[in-house]
Order: sequence, then C-alpha cells, then structure tokens
Amino acid sequence: MLAATRQLVRWLDELGQISDEEARLTRTFLSPAMRRANAQVGRWMQSAGLAVREDGVGNLIGRLEGPTPGAKTLLLGSHLDTVRDAGRFDGPLGVLLPILALQELQRRRIALPYAVEVLGFAEEEGVRFASAYLGSKGYSGQLRAADLAFKDAAGVSVRAALETFAGAPWKAPAAAHRQSNLLGYFEVHIEQGPVLEAEELAVGVVTAIAGQTRGRLTLRGRAGHAGTTPMALRRDALAGAAEVVLAAEALARAVPGLVATVGTLQVKPGAPNVIPGEVVLSLDVRHARDGARTKALRELLATAGRIARRRRLGQEWQITQDNGAVACAPALTRQLGAAVRAVQGRNLELVSGAGHDAVVMAGLTDVAMLFVRCKEGLSHHPDEQAAPADLDAALRVTVEFLSQLRHV
Amino acid sequence: MLAATRQLVRWLDELGQISDEEARLTRTFLSPAMRRANAQVGRWMQSAGLAVREDGVGNLIGRLEGPTPGAKTLLLGSHLDTVRDAGRFDGPLGVLLPILALQELQRRRIALPYAVEVLGFAEEEGVRFASAYLGSKGYSGQLRAADLAFKDAAGVSVRAALETFAGAPWKAPAAAHRQSNLLGYFEVHIEQGPVLEAEELAVGVVTAIAGQTRGRLTLRGRAGHAGTTPMALRRDALAGAAEVVLAAEALARAVPGLVATVGTLQVKPGAPNVIPGEVVLSLDVRHARDGARTKALRELLATAGRIARRRRLGQEWQITQDNGAVACAPALTRQLGAAVRAVQGRNLELVSGAGHDAVVMAGLTDVAMLFVRCKEGLSHHPDEQAAPADLDAALRVTVEFLSQLRHV
Repeated sequence: MLAATRQLVRWLDELGQISDEEARLTRTFLSPAMRRANAQVGRWMQSAGLAVREDGVGNLIGRLEGPTPGAKTLLLGSHLDTVRDAGRFDGPLGVLLPILALQELQRRRIALPYAVEVLGFAEEEGVRFASAYLGSKGYSGQLRAADLAFKDAAGVSVRAALETFAGAPWKAPAAAHRQSNLLGYFEVHIEQGPVLEAEELAVGVVTAIAGQTRGRLTLRGRAGHAGTTPMALRRDALAGAAEVVLAAEALARAVPGLVATVGTLQVKPGAPNVIPGEVVLSLDVRHARDGARTKALRELLATAGRIARRRRLGQEWQITQDNGAVACAPALTRQLGAAVRAVQGRNLELVSGAGHDAVVMAGLTDVAMLFVRCKEGLSHHPDEQAAPADLDAALRVTVEFLSQLRHV
Repeated sequence: MLAATRQLVRWLDELGQISDEEARLTRTFLSPAMRRANAQVGRWMQSAGLAVREDGVGNLIGRLEGPTPGAKTLLLGSHLDTVRDAGRFDGPLGVLLPILALQELQRRRIALPYAVEVLGFAEEEGVRFASAYLGSKGYSGQLRAADLAFKDAAGVSVRAALETFAGAPWKAPAAAHRQSNLLGYFEVHIEQGPVLEAEELAVGVVTAIAGQTRGRLTLRGRAGHAGTTPMALRRDALAGAAEVVLAAEALARAVPGLVATVGTLQVKPGAPNVIPGEVVLSLDVRHARDGARTKALRELLATAGRIARRRRLGQEWQITQDNGAVACAPALTRQLGAAVRAVQGRNLELVSGAGHDAVVMAGLTDVAMLFVRCKEGLSHHPDEQAAPADLDAALRVTVEFLSQLRHV
C-alpha cells in the first residue's frame, strides 16, 4: 500500500471529526465547521505545494501551475459539505485523494505537462438550502437568481448568506476558467451502490450520470366496508397501486440500465376494515440515456392508465423533478479506463444513479468520474465505509491517469 | 305506504336528534344521551302497548305478553348506541321498526300466538370501551370478567360504570330467558354494503354472519439508494407486498363469498429515493363458513411465504382478531324468506360481513336477520340513508313474518 494511501485514511478520519454537531458528522454550506474544514484542507494543500485560495462562494481551490503560462488546467475535486449524520467519504474522498496523488507524483519526480486545480466545493448536498450544487455552480459561473432566492430554516437566503460570507454586496461570479483553457474535470467518489461490491472490483469508471424523473401518482377508487362489500363491487385503490408497483419493477427489469422505484405509498383512509379509497405513491425513474428514460416513463404511465381504467379508478400524475442525463467525456473516460485496467486488470463501466458535482461541471468542461467500492453500497450514514485497499487502488489509478493524460 | 312507515321515518329523525355531542350524532354506553334515548323509545313502546323496563346493563326492554302464560317469547331488537358522528339507521331501525310492526298488527286486529320482547341494546359499537356487544352480552347472560375490566378514556371500567348505573355492587346478570322459552331473535338492520342496491332490491335475508380473521403481515427486505441499486440486486419489500395485495384479491375473487382486504400498508423508510426496506400491511379475511375462511387464509399465507422466499424477504404474520362465523337458524330464515317473497316478489340471501347483536344472541337462541338496502352501502356516516319505500318493505316483511311465524 502506498504511504500516500495511509495518509489519505488518516486525513479522512481527521476531516470526519470537523462537524457542526457534537456527536455526529454534519457540515453545511458556509457553517463554522465548513470554515474549519477549508482551513484544514487548505493546510494539507499547501503541504503538497499547491497555492490555496477561497472563491466568493466558499469553494476551496488549490492550484499547481503548469510548466508554461499557456498550459491548460485539469480540474480535480468534489465537495466538502456533508448530509446530516454523514459518513466520512461522500465528498471529501474526491478532494483529499487528488492532493495525495499530486504528492505521490512529486515523490516519483513526475512533472505534469499541464496545470492542476484541486477543488473542495462548498456545497453539494442541498442540506442547508433546498437547492444543491451551490459550490460547483458558483465555480463554473452557473449560479442563477433562482438559486439565490432559496432560504434556510432560519429564513436566511442564499444571497444574504453569501453577502455575509464575502462581507460585500452580491456580485455574480464569472466562471473560474474559460472552457478552452481546461482539460476537463475529474471526480473520485464512492459508488453509493452495490455494483462494484457484487463484481468484486475496487474501482470502476463512470460513463454517464443518469437522468431522473420523479413524480407522484394518485389513484382514486372508493372506500368501503371490508366485510360488506363483495369483491366484484370494489374499486380498491391499493390493488390498482400494487399493479403499478409491479409494472414499474417489471419494466425496469426488462430495460437494461433502467431503475424504477416506488419509495413511498400512502393509503387513505387507512384502516384494516376499510377498502382503500385513495393511494398516493412516488415514482422515481432513472437511466443513462434520456430517450430510454422518457420512453420507459411513457410506457409506465400508459400501463398505469390501463390499470386505472380497467379498475374504474381516477388517476393523476404530477412530476416533481426532471433532470436530463449527463454523459462523461468519451476521450477522458477512455484514458481513465486504461488507467483502471493498468491497476486492477479489469475495468467496469458504471452509470451513476446519483447526482454529483460532475453534473454541474459538465456545463463548463469535459468530465470523467472514478467510482470506489463502498461497503454494502451504504452511504449518507455514519457506517459509510471504503476499504483502505480500495482507496489505494483509486489513488494508484489517479496517479496513473494524471501521469498518462494526453491533451484531448 | 303504511302510516306506520311514515311514523317510523319521523321516529328515526327524532331519535337521531338525541346525541351526546352538539352538531353530530353520538350516543355511547350509559351516556346522558343514551338515558334520554331509552326514555324516549320507552314512551313509544308504551304507546304501542308494551310493558317497559330497563335491565341491569341499561338495555331497554318492551314486552307484549302472549295469549297464555306458557307461550314462548320471540325477541326483536338491535342497539340504541351509535358510533361517533353516526347516521340515524344503524341500530335504531331494528328497535323502532318492531314497535311499529306490533302497532300495525294491532291495527289489523291480528293477535300473535306468542309473547314478544322488543330490545334496545345499550351497547353494540364498542365506542366507549374497546369491548363491543356489552348490551346483548348482558341480556343473554354472556358478560365475562374480561368484558368488565375494559376501561374508557377516563379510566372508568365497565364494572364501575355499571355499578354507578345500578347504584349497587356488580352482580352478574343471568340470561333474561331460558333457551327453551324462546322462539328466537329477529334483527332488522341496514345492509351497510352495496349488494341490495346492485340487485335493486329493498330487503334481503341474512343466512350467516361471516367469520373474520384479521392480522398484520410484515415483509423485510433491504433499503437502498433508488438511483444506485440495480434492479437485480434489490430486495424491495414493497414489490413483495404488492404481490401479496394482488394475491389476496385474486384468491377472494376466485372463492365465492370470500372477501379479503388490505386496508393499511406502511412503507419504511418511506422516501421517494429510497428502496423500501420494510412493509407492514393489514389483512382482513371473512367468509360465512369457517372452513372456507381458514383454508383461504392458509393458502394466502403460503403464497406470501413463496413470494417472500423468491424475493429473499423476511416475513412475519401476527393475528390480531379471529372470530368464527355465525349461521342464522334455517327454519326461521326460511319463514323470513317466504315473507320477503310475499312482499317484494323475489328474495335474496346475503351473508353479513359486519358483526351484529345477532352474533351474541346466537349464543342464547336461534337468530334471523333482515337487511334493508342503504344508499351506496354507506354506514357509520351522517349521510347513512335508507329510503322510506325500503323501510316500508321492511316493515311489511316484518308484519308478514310475525303474523305467519309458526312454532319451530
């Protein structure tokens, strides 16, 4: 195991102690713990020879200049904020690992032919404000008025919080770089899913971040006495909903790469001796290709419509969220895949079902992502765990990727 | 329409005004409104020539002696208590209609060859105490220590409430009659279901009161991220529960007379982006024959077990209620059917899916029940409605039944 990997494990532990709450790990946008985290990670960046600064939205940036003034810049990063009661890996891994990869390259006396910026984004999880990705949006010049209007639980808006942070009136930041000056953005992240574990692989390459449609389906039948209403006279909203749940599952099983989930289901009136008169369920559909997602959703809603008509149920569909898929850049992803094969023999291409800073950064430059196996796919939980051996593989892949990266 | 029917409609309206609550109809066991209801119905009984008394548990009893001291007694009745925010028909119809049937027989100068008691039971709905049927249990000598221990919301036990009512220490009442002195018990009740309405019939004869098993089924899978967990790696408790819901429906549709209902279903953790890790659902199964009910339940649980094994879900079944079926007496029911055919041309035999005082009275004597059509099957609701024309049919059937009843 690389000495840098052992350092990485120590740094993840140490950073995991910096929290806004006593007994558990929580770091939210512009909070005291985030200030302390930026200060600590900034010191680690400086120890690796990076020039450190904070931008106007609280992102931490460590820069290593290239061999010539005209050299392009490769961005590496992830976020330093966390969910409430978080694990130590979701976010920080993608900030700390690149610092140690650069240190390892220096130890091996490998000079990169391009500049590097390691980014610790100030906000990705959407905990303090309903809006997520505030850090990467600020860095890439994509913060919009709608993002600034969100308020936290205390009624403070994003704009007000940023003005307090900056000590000056709000001024929309421009993108930190022009696209033509960038080689791309590379993010290392725990998988937050069980695929690498099932495949017995330490790391895999992300080819796309899935698009997602989320909505609420309401089915309305007629409540009735469970003892006195014969089966033939029932309009049972839950029986209809059960068919929809199974139809969603069957469709997702039939379409490669599709996931469909009914995660909530409320029954009204909800008594053991009353036939359900109304059911409201959530439906979450994701796929790496937007066309496949929208086709699946269309088919599923048509099926739900047929179920509702056959059962004489009223039906209503309301979309609550709709995000397009983001494709990782083929050339970067190909080079990353070569680095993975060099380190662990076999590469596995994965689709990310969860969103990441790379989604926003794809609006500025090419993106590539490396996933690291995590125990039982568990994330957003204090038991979140990535094994040191897997971190070592990720670090070796990153070193290999950085040292082999050709201008693309 | 009989003048007695118009009187019945007025009495139902008037009695429906006697409530423990301001704006809605609620009468509970031994409450002030129940005292006033007994007083009012007692006056109506007296006006029809009945000798009126209250027994030790607050039941109202109006007796018309037979032609000879040795004549047997026919019991007619139902309950005068109500659910909260009740309709006017559930219970009172079966007390007031017999009084007017006896009045109509007197008007027609038909003397019955047997004695009659009209019973207004003090408690059937189980609202004040968790225990139901306190009135008919008291009348028939079936009150047990377990019934007396139940406490109301104020902490008053059934025993204490009865001692306060009687002004004397509790003494278990004997049955009001020996079985050998009784002709049977006859109860008129609204159907509380949609079958008569669907069949376009005013009344029908009940052949049995269904047995009922109620329980809680828990299915345990594994929660997971809706975006990052591929379909093949899921153990979705809700998808398993959906199969159980549909299996219950399919089985009940296939077995004549069986009803099976999943009326509640809770999903944990219950977030749109999390695969359900646990589902708890209620299952209510009823049939007129105990053998059919227990066989169906056995099959359904076997199916649930297969579903759980196939999906690698944990499974737990807990029975919360289990009541055997009660058969109505064939001879009485046959004579009642003849009366129905005489009045409306066609008889329809029904199974009661809900419990009634007749369930308890079957422990003392033969029982028969007449169901009256109610609008949209609605009951336990202020909009509960039985049309005057249907009440007229029920009254005519009762007059016919009483005048034709032969010793059985």
